[in-house]
Amino acid sequence: MAKNAFYAQSGGVTSVINASACGVIETARQHPGEIGTVFAGRNGIIGALTEDLIDTSKESDAAIAALRHTPSGAFGSCRYKMKSLEDNRREYERLIEVFKAHDIGYFFYNGGGDSADTCHKVSQLSEHTGFPIQAIHVPKTVDNDLPITDNCPGFGSVAKYIAVSTREASFDVRSMAKTSTKVFVIEVMGRHAGWIAAAGGLAADADNDIPVVILFPEIEFDQDKFLAVVKEKVESHEYCSIVVSEGAHWPDGRFLAEQGTRDAFGHAQLGGAAPVVANMVKDALGYKYHWAVADYLQRAARHLASATDVEQAYAMGKAAVEFAIAGDNAIMPTIVRTADRPYAWEVGKASLSDVANVEKMMPREFISEDGFGITQACRDYLVPLIVGEDYPPYKDGMPQYVTLKNEPVARKLEAFSL
Amino acid sequence: MAKNAFYAQSGGVTSVINASACGVIETARQHPGEIGTVFAGRNGIIGALTEDLIDTSKESDAAIAALRHTPSGAFGSCRYKMKSLEDNRREYERLIEVFKAHDIGYFFYNGGGDSADTCHKVSQLSEHTGFPIQAIHVPKTVDNDLPITDNCPGFGSVAKYIAVSTREASFDVRSMAKTSTKVFVIEVMGRHAGWIAAAGGLAADADNDIPVVILFPEIEFDQDKFLAVVKEKVESHEYCSIVVSEGAHWPDGRFLAEQGTRDAFGHAQLGGAAPVVANMVKDALGYKYHWAVADYLQRAARHLASATDVEQAYAMGKAAVEFAIAGDNAIMPTIVRTADRPYAWEVGKASLSDVANVEKMMPREFISEDGFGITQACRDYLVPLIVGEDYPPYKDGMPQYVTLKNEPVARKLEAFSL
Repeated sequence: MAKNAFYAQSGGVTSVINASACGVIETARQHPGEIGTVFAGRNGIIGALTEDLIDTSKESDAAIAALRHTPSGAFGSCRYKMKSLEDNRREYERLIEVFKAHDIGYFFYNGGGDSADTCHKVSQLSEHTGFPIQAIHVPKTVDNDLPITDNCPGFGSVAKYIAVSTREASFDVRSMAKTSTKVFVIEVMGRHAGWIAAAGGLAADADNDIPVVILFPEIEFDQDKFLAVVKEKVESHEYCSIVVSEGAHWPDGRFLAEQGTRDAFGHAQLGGAAPVVANMVKDALGYKYHWAVADYLQRAARHLASATDVEQAYAMGKAAVEFAIAGDNAIMPTIVRTADRPYAWEVGKASLSDVANVEKMMPREFISEDGFGITQACRDYLVPLIVGEDYPPYKDGMPQYVTLKNEPVARKLEAFSL
Repeated sequence: MAKNAFYAQSGGVTSVINASACGVIETARQHPGEIGTVFAGRNGIIGALTEDLIDTSKESDAAIAALRHTPSGAFGSCRYKMKSLEDNRREYERLIEVFKAHDIGYFFYNGGGDSADTCHKVSQLSEHTGFPIQAIHVPKTVDNDLPITDNCPGFGSVAKYIAVSTREASFDVRSMAKTSTKVFVIEVMGRHAGWIAAAGGLAADADNDIPVVILFPEIEFDQDKFLAVVKEKVESHEYCSIVVSEGAHWPDGRFLAEQGTRDAFGHAQLGGAAPVVANMVKDALGYKYHWAVADYLQRAARHLASATDVEQAYAMGKAAVEFAIAGDNAIMPTIVRTADRPYAWEVGKASLSDVANVEKMMPREFISEDGFGITQACRDYLVPLIVGEDYPPYKDGMPQYVTLKNEPVARKLEAFSL
């Protein structure tokens, strides 16, 4: 008798996490002998804990197919890190109880490092309690910081967005530089790892001599060196584009964004790193500036998704189900790069015990010697990940993203307080 | 004997001003009997004053065609407002002198309100000096504030970008609202007119019940009413998206962005209106927020241009040349809307004396009664302007925008100091 499956989205959403959901649900539907209904957690793992399940079988094939081109988390996500088994056995036991009540034998958890850890613990508990649950982690994170997998679904599309936006804004500044703006600053996500910031370096290439200065979280900020590089770029090109990671920081660890700014009421700074950097340049060098903070726009920009990323996000969801059917447990499907040029990749598999709690930072050899740019090795790594366009359908000028019905499953258990 | 033409780009550039340049140059090339070489001003009108002309005949047909899909100002633009004829007759006379030296009989000036004014003055001076120059203004402004024309090339693409980005970010916030971000704020351009802010309202439609609150420059900011509306939206939808115009201001005229914020050195605020609004919501209602400032990204986003906008930008350039050949002077081609549904438009013509120094604001009936949204009349106006996608070509994941050779024309006159 086919067991049901549970699927949940975790942490910050991306423009392609729903493509993974699409891969999970479509593949499960192709295997009715092995997998019954896919229940989704409403607002991620909280939906499992509170027995707030969504019956995805109520969604049409067309609606599920539309997830492939819809950004965000269609079932809701959450920021809710489960504690260790020792500190919060109650929650893990509740998960097992809910899975038991709804005859769930497969746990698909779509997220980053924290959710890989949770997924791993669920598989361990399952062993101890004797209730069999196959726990499979589906990788997702714009931060691109999961280990073992060559890259993470969600990253390629953010990288494309930042690379394209930086190129476009650079063309704009170049036009204005004679009498007006000379420096453009764009702030990007990535508090610990500089992968997204690195993508800004792709604005320049052999055909586009664009002066880009990148501030990585991996490199301690050196104000004098930074200002000297900006000055040199503006003198040689009349303008300069600066890509600053939200995680860029001073040698003492303080983020650039924490500039000690206070408003009239004494509240701490309102702004991000971009205005701080822009003002620093203005004060020292006198250049007129503009700055942008992309924030959610970068990770929600399904309109500019990387086709490679969409394909891989779907493939990870599909592989998760196929691995589950094959009997795997406590694993995560991975992307294995088999060649750079032409780019080739295949689906691999990692043990969750090797994935949980490991952060993959930018290798130093991906950052140029001066610390403000990317190397050829970094380009070779990044470019394949942004290749291809995968446009959503449009109606009346607007992308047609799907909103699911998200019908609840009848509860069978007592309420549970978080 | 065919006279040469002068073309210049003025003020803030857009994602489609080069499509107008393309229209001007391609149309001129089709009429060699009437128009000789098109010279472009390097960095706008400054190129004319300093006799820094670009010979566009050195560019291949393919390079000129690529302007249609290239954002920014390919010849450089400038912010340089010429004073009145009385105050600065010297500069106007210099223009005539340069035009005379290079046998220029046509002056095509591509810009907003200020450049329409300059263009008008050149045509007046031409009359007085007896040197015949046909001065034609080619409309361009993301602010959409030129009179007579139904809309301005450049606006439709920004509107599409803001509408799409607001929808995408709203999907994102909705996913996170249960345990994390509940309010997303996006700051958009438009210091005087709220046209761009209004476009954020298109994120919601009959199929997308998205709670959007808009802060227009046309409506004095009322903090209590604003907070009440945000609270009501979050209570009904779990989240809320706020679109704030950079020109949103208090009843006394102070911009929201001027919050009295000081950095450690006592410098005035670094940030924009978005962080101010976000913090205001957090302080009063306790909602977790995210905010973005689109800045140049919105007006450079050729990757998401409106096909209608691209077509109209090209048509304005083409019409300018055709009007010139037909003998017109001191005019601007316009977009005349002949029907809403299905949308239909044709090229019209306005006298520059009616265009110069008139700003078109949002009509009050386009703003909802409570002042925080758009009406059906506004939708009927906006939607046709964002319809259609016109994607640039991509290579290795990146849009292929053209950078022209921009070869200089040999100078014939003495230097001129600005």
